[in-house]
Amino acid sequence: MQLRHVKILGTGKYLPTRKVTDEELDTLLGTPAGWVNKITGVGVRHYAGGGETASTMGAKAAEAALLAAGLSFADIDCLVCTSGTKEQPLPSTAVFIQQAMGQENSGVPAFDIDSTCLSFLVGLDVMSYMVEAGRYRNVLLVASEIASAGLDYEDKESAALFGDGAAAVVIGPSPAGESSKILHASLKTYSSGARYSEIAGGGTRLHARKFSRENALPYLFHMDGQAIFRKASKLLPEFLEDMLAQSHTQMEDFRLVVPHQGSAMAMRLLRKKLGIAEDRFLDNTPGHGNTIAASIPMGLHEAVSQGRVQRGDRILFIGTAAGLSLGGLILDY
Amino acid sequence: MQLRHVKILGTGKYLPTRKVTDEELDTLLGTPAGWVNKITGVGVRHYAGGGETASTMGAKAAEAALLAAGLSFADIDCLVCTSGTKEQPLPSTAVFIQQAMGQENSGVPAFDIDSTCLSFLVGLDVMSYMVEAGRYRNVLLVASEIASAGLDYEDKESAALFGDGAAAVVIGPSPAGESSKILHASLKTYSSGARYSEIAGGGTRLHARKFSRENALPYLFHMDGQAIFRKASKLLPEFLEDMLAQSHTQMEDFRLVVPHQGSAMAMRLLRKKLGIAEDRFLDNTPGHGNTIAASIPMGLHEAVSQGRVQRGDRILFIGTAAGLSLGGLILDY
Repeated sequence: MQLRHVKILGTGKYLPTRKVTDEELDTLLGTPAGWVNKITGVGVRHYAGGGETASTMGAKAAEAALLAAGLSFADIDCLVCTSGTKEQPLPSTAVFIQQAMGQENSGVPAFDIDSTCLSFLVGLDVMSYMVEAGRYRNVLLVASEIASAGLDYEDKESAALFGDGAAAVVIGPSPAGESSKILHASLKTYSSGARYSEIAGGGTRLHARKFSRENALPYLFHMDGQAIFRKASKLLPEFLEDMLAQSHTQMEDFRLVVPHQGSAMAMRLLRKKLGIAEDRFLDNTPGHGNTIAASIPMGLHEAVSQGRVQRGDRILFIGTAAGLSLGGLILDY
Repeated sequence: MQLRHVKILGTGKYLPTRKVTDEELDTLLGTPAGWVNKITGVGVRHYAGGGETASTMGAKAAEAALLAAGLSFADIDCLVCTSGTKEQPLPSTAVFIQQAMGQENSGVPAFDIDSTCLSFLVGLDVMSYMVEAGRYRNVLLVASEIASAGLDYEDKESAALFGDGAAAVVIGPSPAGESSKILHASLKTYSSGARYSEIAGGGTRLHARKFSRENALPYLFHMDGQAIFRKASKLLPEFLEDMLAQSHTQMEDFRLVVPHQGSAMAMRLLRKKLGIAEDRFLDNTPGHGNTIAASIPMGLHEAVSQGRVQRGDRILFIGTAAGLSLGGLILDY
């Protein structure tokens, strides 16, 4: 069963205070003036600093989402962190978000769902079944990412794309008579692309204790953008076609498509390939960059805040993630 | 809704080849002969080595579970890694398990659910709603842990407890006329205990690139066993009472209780406190140690293999995890 009578009750975001302009990044990367802006179009991204952590950022986005939903933490039955990176290897980041929200004795279940850049999409998909079944009433999904911690500034093309930030969404059962629902979702993982983007070191295979300055590279983010783009271009059209066929929807039905904000350039090419009209396609990279798993809920938050999405509008989330995974979710907002 | 007509179709486990005896560990830790055996009773635990990774171990446990279920990978609709540690920070460990199973072009969705030592319990709880709803038919849950990678051998009491290993479970819809089901599950998280057990370094807050030999400690596992035990003793009795009341079950209904195998000593004390009969309580620490999130499914696998559990028997999974979380799940096998 695909249909779930689940409603997005509120969204929120938080951007760290330190702004990093394209110009500043040109200096940092040693690239010619204008290079970062030309290849990314980001303008300004944000980097965490001054004590900001994934959990403090996530807590602020979560509080904004609760406010937007007209709810308080006492209304929340489960807190799921849907980030692609972790604050620390153990325990789950959701635990630290609960703590940062001052709810450390609440007992509210807190755990992580990780599908790298698609973690929010997968978390929304998975948790909506628990809401539909009535196991949990209101669920708080939080994606909070500090990409800047693991960037390799020698790999200029990928380092230029990312920004830090957090976004949160509260979901709950759709009230009787309201049309809000999740119609369909799909996830496909092709591990033949497992190493197209990765951070190899820092887990149990290549432990942090083996780090040395002479062998720092595996501990930093590596991305083969070309390989990802080639595989995504090949797989995404059929993936989307299948989703539309199975959900009996058409591209024209979508008021807005919110893609994972990988890079503006790749998004533009994929938009054309997938036949999505420009005015129905959200490019949220300016001012944000690629905020990993926070990028889709942050895109949704911007669309809602700017009035680009109204209640009843049909939306498509779509994107690729390290894995390599393709994911999509269709919802009536 | 708590009831889910979901059946455990097969279980499997894998232990790495290198055996580490209590005697060997006494030498490694510099403790008097007999000390490790006295405080752990483990006898032999296994450490990964010789190219064994979380994903290769997980793949072997998964293949064993598929065999036990009489299924092949083609029958699997979703692969979820439910480990408390990660093979590498990015992408998800489930991706590497898919790859290690030789299924890299299968497209089968692969992602991670992390609730530290309770990851399997939470993964089973969450994913069973997707099976119940018919979204996925058969789901492969794999917990694979290399605790040995991050142990601090100066912290002798906790280092002595752990072992490496993997366990996997295949779940699917319960066939008509069969009684297999999940009756109830509960998770509570109290982040006031967030730092009772943790690995502080290696995520985005204290990045692996900041590691130095002079400051290695935060990158290793730290556990305040006393604090965990105090909090667990205080919270678990009411937690279990609530579960029994809400599910209309009694302790006598359980053919077997499979606790998280934290430490034999703590388990013994909690067993008495919770009023569980010794012959209905699985102590799987001998030969295994604490295998983090693999410990509950490994306990289930042992119980099934040894005939301590038959179809139709009611089982209780229960335990605590870093977070601090309490978790329980009641199922008819």
